[in-house]
Amino acid sequence: MRVSAIGEFALIERIRSMLPRPHDALLGIGDDCAVLRPTAGRDLLLTTDLLVDGVDFTRQTTTPFRLGRKAMAVNLSDIAAMGGLPRAALVALAIPPEEEIEFIDELYRGLREEGAQFAVEVIGGDLSASATLTIGVTLVGEVEAGRAVTRSGAKPGERIWTTGRLGAAAAGLVALRAGCRLRDDQIETSFDVSISLREALTQTIERHLCPIPRIREGRALAQAGVASAMIDLSDGLASDLAHLCRESEVSAKIREDQIPIDQAASVVAQRFGQDPLAMALQGGEDFELLFTSSWDPADIAAMFPDGTTVTAVGKIGEAGLGCRLERQDGSSTVLTGGYDHFRRI
Amino acid sequence: MRVSAIGEFALIERIRSMLPRPHDALLGIGDDCAVLRPTAGRDLLLTTDLLVDGVDFTRQTTTPFRLGRKAMAVNLSDIAAMGGLPRAALVALAIPPEEEIEFIDELYRGLREEGAQFAVEVIGGDLSASATLTIGVTLVGEVEAGRAVTRSGAKPGERIWTTGRLGAAAAGLVALRAGCRLRDDQIETSFDVSISLREALTQTIERHLCPIPRIREGRALAQAGVASAMIDLSDGLASDLAHLCRESEVSAKIREDQIPIDQAASVVAQRFGQDPLAMALQGGEDFELLFTSSWDPADIAAMFPDGTTVTAVGKIGEAGLGCRLERQDGSSTVLTGGYDHFRRI
Repeated sequence: MRVSAIGEFALIERIRSMLPRPHDALLGIGDDCAVLRPTAGRDLLLTTDLLVDGVDFTRQTTTPFRLGRKAMAVNLSDIAAMGGLPRAALVALAIPPEEEIEFIDELYRGLREEGAQFAVEVIGGDLSASATLTIGVTLVGEVEAGRAVTRSGAKPGERIWTTGRLGAAAAGLVALRAGCRLRDDQIETSFDVSISLREALTQTIERHLCPIPRIREGRALAQAGVASAMIDLSDGLASDLAHLCRESEVSAKIREDQIPIDQAASVVAQRFGQDPLAMALQGGEDFELLFTSSWDPADIAAMFPDGTTVTAVGKIGEAGLGCRLERQDGSSTVLTGGYDHFRRI
Repeated sequence: MRVSAIGEFALIERIRSMLPRPHDALLGIGDDCAVLRPTAGRDLLLTTDLLVDGVDFTRQTTTPFRLGRKAMAVNLSDIAAMGGLPRAALVALAIPPEEEIEFIDELYRGLREEGAQFAVEVIGGDLSASATLTIGVTLVGEVEAGRAVTRSGAKPGERIWTTGRLGAAAAGLVALRAGCRLRDDQIETSFDVSISLREALTQTIERHLCPIPRIREGRALAQAGVASAMIDLSDGLASDLAHLCRESEVSAKIREDQIPIDQAASVVAQRFGQDPLAMALQGGEDFELLFTSSWDPADIAAMFPDGTTVTAVGKIGEAGLGCRLERQDGSSTVLTGGYDHFRRI
């Protein structure tokens, strides 16, 4: 059945019935506004992201369930990057009237399941028609008053750190563009693959389609007062480090041999003749956290006993020197590149 | 110059420089989240609306400045309908890369000026590319804890009230569809018009393109505890009254001879052979407030000495009787109609 067959208000009721009655909101879907009681002693974090069909995703390479998960995850990642706890989401959806209702059901199932991992519920939103499927998620989070970790607090001499390993999302995109597909968690390819390549393709595509927001890591870093500045890696390390440096009015130098390149990304890069370092530096959507700190490296490494990797990748310098990459041979180059919505189309 | 020529990050910087540094937020545009300190003793109100090119507006009949104003105003109206005070806005924009930058400048000027009337600033947002220009505004407001006026509080026996006069926005849309245009506040038509018709066309088109959110009226009603339930008239009185009755589990009867039809709407309706009552009942986007109250009518009328009209249009009844219109001849009919995003395309 199509969206146009049931109409706007029946669709709102359908969505409302699919979502759990919010435990955390005074008022959820079905009124002019949602109502939330803020936690005393905390500041509000507010973020919004639009995912546009054909630009931020293609329906050929994902499922509506995964798309819903990703739409929620990229906003969760913004809350993580401030060291905050997410609380509730609004979802605004512009849908072609000929869209199948099952697509909308699956999209909301994805939004709900991803949110539920972090106790976040959809408490409001809006529906409109559009020729271009567009998903707008707004997330409200909280952080201890005055403790939000911004992009602007980095100081010369501090180390630059990243959580996790980089390049997997970019490698997954390369694999998708080469025609590989995930169906029911099984990889489909038009070419023969070894067991190790199959695993690498699955892992990287999964990372591209369903990124993991680093909420726990961001909270730990903020609550311990470790991070002087923080940003999530959505556009790519090169680009996001440049944002952080501009806001902090500092420069940065990172070391090629310290970049924690994802193992599966390296396997995929090799198969498709691409440079894994470029995937790690210029590929976006890893949604790891990049942060700066004056803390002793051993103390930072000891913060995550449950296995989250953290790697010191370079150092902050005085303003005016830009962002540079120090090669293994001792030479250094200006760090460039990263995703720009209006230049890649 | 086009958006694609300057790229995403230069455009973000341009938007940031056009907007005043937020006086009310701890952190505005340029980080992963905006940061706002909630007011002690208040609940948060959260609302989001998407405006889609070709569905919620057409670029042929408005200017980017007016479009920006309307995108802000429709969200302000949702805050008004809860009896709240708006605080801050996020703006998510999906833009065709070939869009002129001046269009974006004017759009943000409209968002800023409409917001400024209610001390609301744009403190964050997102940019994406899209074939379909799409504007998503999220508004955060506040209301005294536990005092949000919902749709669900109406009780049998209470009177139904509306602020202002109805039908102007629908009449303006009829005029726009007949080819009338507002240019620099002057009306342009392809046919001869009298002075009174010229004024009526100008007023109704202005109301359609730039609705006036009833923030002050909503606040007054909430703070005095007058309104038991409230909704803003975005889809049309017939449809919005039905929403209110469904959430309150009541019925309603409104009287044809009590509907405050806008004078200019009547003039425009007559010129185009349309029914002004239908414009008032089924035409959406008047953004007046519909509320229910057990208060004495004289006390409610006395609340707005500055000239805002309030009119008792009917009464709430027991559940199960639906929403009915009582005709002047004593007969009554079921109230139907109103805007549906997926049925009118």
